[in-house]
Amino acid sequence: MKYQEALNELATLLGQRISWSKFELESHGQSESYFPLTLPDAVAYPTSAGELSEIVKICAKHAMPVIGWGAGTSLEGHALAHQGGLVVDFRNMAAVLALHPEDMTVTVQPGITREVLNEELRATGLFFPVDPGANASIGGMAATRASGTTAVKYGTMADNVLALEVVLADGRIIHTGSRAPKSAAGYDLTALMVGSEGTLGLITELTLRLQGQPECSGAAVCAFDDIGAAVDTVIETIQYGLPMARIEFIDGPTAAAVNAYSGSDLPECPHLLVEFHGSEAAVAEQAETFGEILKEHGGKGFEWASRAEDRTALWHMRHHAYWAILASRPGARAVVTDLCVPISKLSQAVEETRADIAESGIPGPILGHVGDGNFHAILMIDPEKPEELETAKALSSRMVKRALALGGTVTGEHGVGYGKLDYMAAEHGGGWDVMGDIKKALDPQNILNPGKVVRFPA
Amino acid sequence: MKYQEALNELATLLGQRISWSKFELESHGQSESYFPLTLPDAVAYPTSAGELSEIVKICAKHAMPVIGWGAGTSLEGHALAHQGGLVVDFRNMAAVLALHPEDMTVTVQPGITREVLNEELRATGLFFPVDPGANASIGGMAATRASGTTAVKYGTMADNVLALEVVLADGRIIHTGSRAPKSAAGYDLTALMVGSEGTLGLITELTLRLQGQPECSGAAVCAFDDIGAAVDTVIETIQYGLPMARIEFIDGPTAAAVNAYSGSDLPECPHLLVEFHGSEAAVAEQAETFGEILKEHGGKGFEWASRAEDRTALWHMRHHAYWAILASRPGARAVVTDLCVPISKLSQAVEETRADIAESGIPGPILGHVGDGNFHAILMIDPEKPEELETAKALSSRMVKRALALGGTVTGEHGVGYGKLDYMAAEHGGGWDVMGDIKKALDPQNILNPGKVVRFPA
Repeated sequence: MKYQEALNELATLLGQRISWSKFELESHGQSESYFPLTLPDAVAYPTSAGELSEIVKICAKHAMPVIGWGAGTSLEGHALAHQGGLVVDFRNMAAVLALHPEDMTVTVQPGITREVLNEELRATGLFFPVDPGANASIGGMAATRASGTTAVKYGTMADNVLALEVVLADGRIIHTGSRAPKSAAGYDLTALMVGSEGTLGLITELTLRLQGQPECSGAAVCAFDDIGAAVDTVIETIQYGLPMARIEFIDGPTAAAVNAYSGSDLPECPHLLVEFHGSEAAVAEQAETFGEILKEHGGKGFEWASRAEDRTALWHMRHHAYWAILASRPGARAVVTDLCVPISKLSQAVEETRADIAESGIPGPILGHVGDGNFHAILMIDPEKPEELETAKALSSRMVKRALALGGTVTGEHGVGYGKLDYMAAEHGGGWDVMGDIKKALDPQNILNPGKVVRFPA
Repeated sequence: MKYQEALNELATLLGQRISWSKFELESHGQSESYFPLTLPDAVAYPTSAGELSEIVKICAKHAMPVIGWGAGTSLEGHALAHQGGLVVDFRNMAAVLALHPEDMTVTVQPGITREVLNEELRATGLFFPVDPGANASIGGMAATRASGTTAVKYGTMADNVLALEVVLADGRIIHTGSRAPKSAAGYDLTALMVGSEGTLGLITELTLRLQGQPECSGAAVCAFDDIGAAVDTVIETIQYGLPMARIEFIDGPTAAAVNAYSGSDLPECPHLLVEFHGSEAAVAEQAETFGEILKEHGGKGFEWASRAEDRTALWHMRHHAYWAILASRPGARAVVTDLCVPISKLSQAVEETRADIAESGIPGPILGHVGDGNFHAILMIDPEKPEELETAKALSSRMVKRALALGGTVTGEHGVGYGKLDYMAAEHGGGWDVMGDIKKALDPQNILNPGKVVRFPA
């Protein structure tokens, strides 16, 4: 085996906390996306930054790749060991380390999932707002600069991570940022690490901004005759400056899939799902304003859910839309596309995408966090038909090129991983070379999640 | 002259747009702070990124330092040519290039000042919210990660720059970010450049997020018996989650200086100056809630200014506080300190600082953007008495060490420049080495604003 010597040293260090059993390798060799099974050489379960530092030093000595693993929910092959090596699973590093309710911050280990974190915060009246849908790990969310349904109000992981502890490629442990609300003290290494997908360092601790649970929340679903009217409602709402907590789009096929899966009875047409946060008076005022905008665009059935259980049912439905869509074509695998454009280009991007998908013959419901100009198509392919995967990839490729032509980005929130690598040069030009220069400076052996984000050696 | 050959080549390129007249060198050799006159070798006035690229290539060939210059309002010697070289003044690159009101973005050249930008935006109903007080250039504000009075609501420059064009140390021109509201496409080079103080590249174009002018604004001044009560009011307001647009603190000596300078009649005690933005109903509700918190802490004279001219007078007074304080000791120079701590540590930090200043014998009014945990002391020294400068520097040093001990940062918004360099190792530890590694990767000759932010060669 290529890394036998490294594995022997790691086994001495870790004992039972490293494994290369078939089961462990396979469960860390798959993703929720279309990528084929990709086995690492071993899986380690460190318990501290100090131990991870020792692990990385051993890997560095033997030039063995090290790939971080949170909850395995990423969609572009981020955590797959394409070049072999060691997957580091953070499940033993999933604690809340320090809670500072008076500062509205919490310090956690990377393996904790967002749902567990919010469960632990429940009694404090605070919550962590970033919500990518999947019950991802906080470390993984930071590494991929995740966002999701609430980013339109609370921002992405880039806006909600204050400080990090990071193990570098040579095993050094550094701290970035602080608990101060802002700083101008040099290069923003926290921002550099967030979204670097484990290619510059492995995150072992995160200090997060928290939010106060809103005094009042209100949510609603509304239906539209066509996609254009729904998207125009979003654009006008954002331009008006309404502080939406969520403004989500689902198209007709998504509504149909959701009905079949969740037993709801949405009309099978485009919808917006919205939520407001604030004082009772503020929520009522926002809802009224939104209702007026809606009416101008022919929106219908603006039904108000101010009861917590109705809101929970609504967002449960939205969060399970991915599974609902998959269930609508039994046995299918999904190619989940992701793009983001300036809000003024959203109608055009969605309409052109819809027409393109229709022409391809692949079922591909569209849904997204349209308040950010961000949407997805879930392209469902038969895993037995390789030509469908090719068609889906070609569709995805046209989508991202369309996003670039409209002044947008090839990924709003899923990240680059392996799946979007081929578009980085087109989006960033010489900026991608600079990313490579930074990678080379911090990880000259290219052992940290090699083959992701940057191409190195170039 | 050390760089004669480079200067000859630059003169051939730039003609009248380069100068080494005594007047030009002196006006680009001073700062608003306590640093001694520091003359560059020449001052260039490029008109485009392409021209700046040619300038940088000539400087790179001759290893001549290149230092960006916006409005010259930075406070830590950021734009001073400590190692000689060429100052690049962006006054000829100060245009609005593209306005996208429908996306609430604007693309500008770096030399435009925030006041001119907001003047140009006036008719659109949009504004650029970041407000450091000084009429700084937008490029300089990005380079130093500026913030100021409105950051508590709208964030700092880190939150409000979407995309950049940057000239690198070898003359390459790159583009970072896009006009999409968010992206997960690789390392966040925009965030890396914002706050890098011209040491990694020179910004030649910025795309900024804009905000809608609030439907309604309300501002108020309120007085407190002691600093603790004022600061506790701030802490409770932030923890309550009130979306303050501004929440500023001034102490008694600042109030006295402001009265003398602006003809106001504030009681000479600690004050908070606050502003709310939103709908009429939202502002009224916020003001009521704030009034209740205020009352619990013994705040007095909560006088409401909803007329635009009263608000303008209020913030004019706040923005001129620095000059008012300077005028209170005729002939004095200022050492302006800057620190930022977690909000729960704000009382302790302010009280200890106040006591420390009182003991030093140097007049040092305190004021700050306390909603962010950020405050300043304006230490007034007699330029004829070098021992006062030493006392002030020692005070500043104790302040930043106090900030670090309380989990904060050595600079909330003024940046590192030359003045805070000695504290970077204490704040960042091994992270500072990583900053040095990045600098070395992107500027191996160390020609971009050498001697600032990082120490290189280490």
